[in-house]
Amino acid sequence: MSHNSFGHLFRVTTFGESHGVALGCVVDGCPPNLALEACDIQRDLDRRKPGQSRFTTQRREADEVKILSGVFHDERTDGQRTTGAPIALVIENTDQRSKDYGDIRDRYRPGHADFTYDAKYGIRDYRGGGRSSARETAARVAAGAIARKVIAGVTIRAALVQMGPHKIERANWDWQQVDANPFFTPDAAAAAKFEEYLDGVRKAGSSCGAVIEVVASGVPAGWGAPIYGKLDSDLAAAMMSINAVKGVEIGEGFASAALSGEDNADEIRMKDGRPEFLTNKAGGVLGGISSGQDIVVRFAVKPTSSILTPRRSITAGGEETDVMTKGRHDPCVGIRAVPVGEAMMALVLADHFLRHRGQVG
Amino acid sequence: MSHNSFGHLFRVTTFGESHGVALGCVVDGCPPNLALEACDIQRDLDRRKPGQSRFTTQRREADEVKILSGVFHDERTDGQRTTGAPIALVIENTDQRSKDYGDIRDRYRPGHADFTYDAKYGIRDYRGGGRSSARETAARVAAGAIARKVIAGVTIRAALVQMGPHKIERANWDWQQVDANPFFTPDAAAAAKFEEYLDGVRKAGSSCGAVIEVVASGVPAGWGAPIYGKLDSDLAAAMMSINAVKGVEIGEGFASAALSGEDNADEIRMKDGRPEFLTNKAGGVLGGISSGQDIVVRFAVKPTSSILTPRRSITAGGEETDVMTKGRHDPCVGIRAVPVGEAMMALVLADHFLRHRGQVG
Amino acid sequence: MSHNSFGHLFRVTTFGESHGVALGCVVDGCPPNLALEACDIQRDLDRRKPGQSRFTTQRREADEVKILSGVFHDERTDGQRTTGAPIALVIENTDQRSKDYGDIRDRYRPGHADFTYDAKYGIRDYRGGGRSSARETAARVAAGAIARKVIAGVTIRAALVQMGPHKIERANWDWQQVDANPFFTPDAAAAAKFEEYLDGVRKAGSSCGAVIEVVASGVPAGWGAPIYGKLDSDLAAAMMSINAVKGVEIGEGFASAALSGEDNADEIRMKDGRPEFLTNKAGGVLGGISSGQDIVVRFAVKPTSSILTPRRSITAGGEETDVMTKGRHDPCVGIRAVPVGEAMMALVLADHFLRHRGQVG
Amino acid sequence: MSHNSFGHLFRVTTFGESHGVALGCVVDGCPPNLALEACDIQRDLDRRKPGQSRFTTQRREADEVKILSGVFHDERTDGQRTTGAPIALVIENTDQRSKDYGDIRDRYRPGHADFTYDAKYGIRDYRGGGRSSARETAARVAAGAIARKVIAGVTIRAALVQMGPHKIERANWDWQQVDANPFFTPDAAAAAKFEEYLDGVRKAGSSCGAVIEVVASGVPAGWGAPIYGKLDSDLAAAMMSINAVKGVEIGEGFASAALSGEDNADEIRMKDGRPEFLTNKAGGVLGGISSGQDIVVRFAVKPTSSILTPRRSITAGGEETDVMTKGRHDPCVGIRAVPVGEAMMALVLADHFLRHRGQVG
Repeated sequence: MSHNSFGHLFRVTTFGESHGVALGCVVDGCPPNLALEACDIQRDLDRRKPGQSRFTTQRREADEVKILSGVFHDERTDGQRTTGAPIALVIENTDQRSKDYGDIRDRYRPGHADFTYDAKYGIRDYRGGGRSSARETAARVAAGAIARKVIAGVTIRAALVQMGPHKIERANWDWQQVDANPFFTPDAAAAAKFEEYLDGVRKAGSSCGAVIEVVASGVPAGWGAPIYGKLDSDLAAAMMSINAVKGVEIGEGFASAALSGEDNADEIRMKDGRPEFLTNKAGGVLGGISSGQDIVVRFAVKPTSSILTPRRSITAGGEETDVMTKGRHDPCVGIRAVPVGEAMMALVLADHFLRHRGQVG
Repeated sequence: MSHNSFGHLFRVTTFGESHGVALGCVVDGCPPNLALEACDIQRDLDRRKPGQSRFTTQRREADEVKILSGVFHDERTDGQRTTGAPIALVIENTDQRSKDYGDIRDRYRPGHADFTYDAKYGIRDYRGGGRSSARETAARVAAGAIARKVIAGVTIRAALVQMGPHKIERANWDWQQVDANPFFTPDAAAAAKFEEYLDGVRKAGSSCGAVIEVVASGVPAGWGAPIYGKLDSDLAAAMMSINAVKGVEIGEGFASAALSGEDNADEIRMKDGRPEFLTNKAGGVLGGISSGQDIVVRFAVKPTSSILTPRRSITAGGEETDVMTKGRHDPCVGIRAVPVGEAMMALVLADHFLRHRGQVG
Repeated sequence: MSHNSFGHLFRVTTFGESHGVALGCVVDGCPPNLALEACDIQRDLDRRKPGQSRFTTQRREADEVKILSGVFHDERTDGQRTTGAPIALVIENTDQRSKDYGDIRDRYRPGHADFTYDAKYGIRDYRGGGRSSARETAARVAAGAIARKVIAGVTIRAALVQMGPHKIERANWDWQQVDANPFFTPDAAAAAKFEEYLDGVRKAGSSCGAVIEVVASGVPAGWGAPIYGKLDSDLAAAMMSINAVKGVEIGEGFASAALSGEDNADEIRMKDGRPEFLTNKAGGVLGGISSGQDIVVRFAVKPTSSILTPRRSITAGGEETDVMTKGRHDPCVGIRAVPVGEAMMALVLADHFLRHRGQVG
Repeated sequence: MSHNSFGHLFRVTTFGESHGVALGCVVDGCPPNLALEACDIQRDLDRRKPGQSRFTTQRREADEVKILSGVFHDERTDGQRTTGAPIALVIENTDQRSKDYGDIRDRYRPGHADFTYDAKYGIRDYRGGGRSSARETAARVAAGAIARKVIAGVTIRAALVQMGPHKIERANWDWQQVDANPFFTPDAAAAAKFEEYLDGVRKAGSSCGAVIEVVASGVPAGWGAPIYGKLDSDLAAAMMSINAVKGVEIGEGFASAALSGEDNADEIRMKDGRPEFLTNKAGGVLGGISSGQDIVVRFAVKPTSSILTPRRSITAGGEETDVMTKGRHDPCVGIRAVPVGEAMMALVLADHFLRHRGQVG
């Protein structure tokens, strides 16, 4: 048991604070002989990196990853490969400006973990949220890039499908669009709307939430497990562990509660000698095990708690005060949660692939 | 790692199939010296028991629990106490009628785990769903009754807040009502509506979904952990591991995506020398750690897949066929999920209480 | 983490006290489609059963195992098979005579866990040692019988190689002898000596220790893992977890400390196109990973603490007293540890087989 | 489950190869508010460092540790403290000279893990043993220094009690001597003998084994757990996981097999109102739980496999060859295993302290 580890056979342990020396992770249990260079990881990291548009925090971090262990370039082969040993990744913190955060040393920012960390530990690294900062997710994205190599036949993509109260049109869904706008949204029309909306939010010093959808294609039937090892149970834990996430659903999710048994049934026919589901209300998971359909998960991100409008709060000493958060923040943290959602999907699937192979062969 | 275990320090391992000899669980890591009699567990089990109204399956199971180990009645003390050793609980299966299920031996019921279990294991106990049957949740409820003893100061209650498309009125919420109607709903007016609605569903041989809300009061600030040991992450996994659950949210949940940062902030004041939150949008968890407020979780249950209307499907041999499920089923499995949701909340909190005490003292 | 569980992918959780209702275990993670009947397990249990000669406790337990779950006899196939679901095994306690133990309720027997259990838990099931009784090992033997099915190509055998101060002659080693004498010893000449020696010990109301050697043949090169997942590290934990074991060694073990690097090296040649080690000082494990040679482990069992000669001790209340243990006991618990050692070897290897398959395929 | 992690609540994950960029570890689950500076760790590391006498490898590594995370110096308090977040430690590899090892790229050194790593992974970082190098133990020593802070009332010391065939005189035991000679031995007379003996071994290009004894004083009664969580079981796993260790024993260990029950009993009297054991045959652990006496563990280290005398072996391609290992090696790796044994004892005890506190309070 480890509060900072995720997964069982493909196991990731992350470390590091927002304004500490460095952050990173150790990936243990990776299969050997997978080609892996730092640039494979950097590619995913760069999608999550702050400061890429005016809609994400202007904090500038190079987020350059270094592989410390677990890979080896045998001079007799091409390129670097995993060896089966633990892979340690480190990202140094370069832009720390910790003075920005000095004034929240003693005050609990509403919606932040300041109060609860103090209640639990009696000590708190208050510089930029410390360990509770979303900066920790860089380590997840790095580990996720390795996980993708483990499940090479699986394609994982995510998209922002709701920003504040505004939802996309599903009819407009085009995966190509996702990397063509600063919101990772698959609906070009929505992107235009989001831009205007989020500019307003940003200028008001306010913030808004979002809903992200993550889809994994190419997962064979049979991954996952019954009861507490359910694929959807692990996906729920994975997504809910991302900062600011308050809800997770799979397939029809909460909407399925309002359906009849008839409407909710994913009927099956044979096609080209193989089973074909006619719908995917289940989101690709039945009884905790993948059905071979796309695995579809959505999660809700609450609005960033760091806003310019003062909110009532208290100090660590128990005095009433008002708190407003200056500094550089994402008006919609949901945007940068898109690559994080992909990474968490990859981590869950890589782990379940190995677990399945362990038990069943 | 164990697919059939839940929790870390307070750890429950369940076993048993719907139509096997018996089902049960082993609870490991329970603190010693807690008073525990079988009747303490039976009370919770009886709330989950089938056949208590016309709205739950008519399968009749005594669901009588037997404690095999882990308790001891020292003749010098009053009553039986836990010893710190593993507590094994067994519930024998008495009403099996496995003939009812013979016709689904070769056919995959849409929405059930028949197809995926076969895809994974190449063998399946097809009698009543075998291991994938909701009957496994009896073991969870039994374990949950022990968990409640571990966190004696915490009150855990759950209620059905939506049946099919019909939601309760929050203004009508009255915890007293929950045990006064066959739906575990806190809104007496809704109960009357649900009765009529569900009678229609049942007579049509159809089924419907539900949403359940679970509330834990009296949890002190500081339980839980950052990152992958988040209290809400474990709650999400716990609820999503219940049969037929397709979504989980905490506090405002999915609705928080549409709120502004200002509206979502739970402001804090001092009252009688202690911090008091003015709202509970966060559902009692900040940064994965309890804030001292009520912990509020909701989960969505899909409609029972077992319905009388034939659905298109295939056989294990790959031939197209139609499937309808005779036998005795719950038209709304969400009802009996209410005590299961309470149990899972208790399991998560008992585990986190011990984990917190381990690290912080 | 679970104090009463062993293994990771092939995971066994045991429960039950010496004089409680029943004892047993849950085996989780077993591969599906292995033929498994209760009699496969009973065979191993019967070897461990007490009362089979005058050299083991006269307590009479049927030790009849019942499989509660995790197996299924599909009417279209021959016999019962594992399904991949958890296998629960139960053995009822039939011969309890708890009165024999009443007088040790308040006194700490030297060498027993009475004192430490009380120090830890503040409560103790004092009937026959409760959870600390060697009776728990019946559950291990039962689980081990299933583990053997998982690693069908591997042969696991154990033998008693030292009783009290008397060692066997290695030149006399004959595996056939092991089941031909009541001591599980492979040296017929030693068996005769042991008989006389142990009769003397028994009549004196005394007890003696033993050393057991466990050998696994047919393990392919590559099982195990570096660092903390070393095969020998897990074997050491496994053997040391058996009641009364005080030492574990692999291959040359403690004797290797006195060897030179030259003498300790297992040289390698090619034979029939395959590597062949010329010696096996390493005991079949290099760097924590199996080399393809026999895996050889030895463990030392201390003399039974229950003896008729009074020993100085104290009461739970802190008064000085003398303790002698009446009742029925093994003069040499090491004898019945032989099948337990085999079971623990099987559990470790089955788990490592699945772990290896998970990571490497 | 993680092959490169040790412990449950106080959990250490190590990474790094002998000749890679760096090695280190992540310590998760550390209690908050412990004073911790890098120099606290460096002190222990320096005792393990190579090149401190002519009896250890002449490889020169600074072994300078850097703390990347998990500590915070709040400006309002004195010095740096743990925060409860994961503590990442990194030690850069500075003296790599990988050319020394080029000739063993294709040859399996007898007694080394070369053959088994290749058999398992199909790839091997052959530079200096890669992950199988004893260099990994630097990370353990670093983590152990933190563990000592967690169990501040416990004193952990280790000593070399046998070198090759030469044992110390127990009557000469003097803890002060341990740091006064290059062998960490408590017997000054033995130190002189060891010096002469080991000079001979070294000049012959040979190697020898050793036995180390680790003693923990001040452990209260009640740490540990029954069955698979036994303190001695975890200690056995811990010590056996150290490179080149082939045997572990506790208290009387293997010698206890030859004792009578009477002689092996640790009798108890009262002294100053507290229980006092008259002997410590058990090595401080009864039934897996600490008794309050000194915890005494011994482990055997085989002779270094790297020797100058050629040994018969094969190449990766299956051709017969001879192997001798040039380069800089320890003639007796057991010497530097002394601080490693202390570290492993500290890791086991810190973990069990937290586990005990979790379950029992």
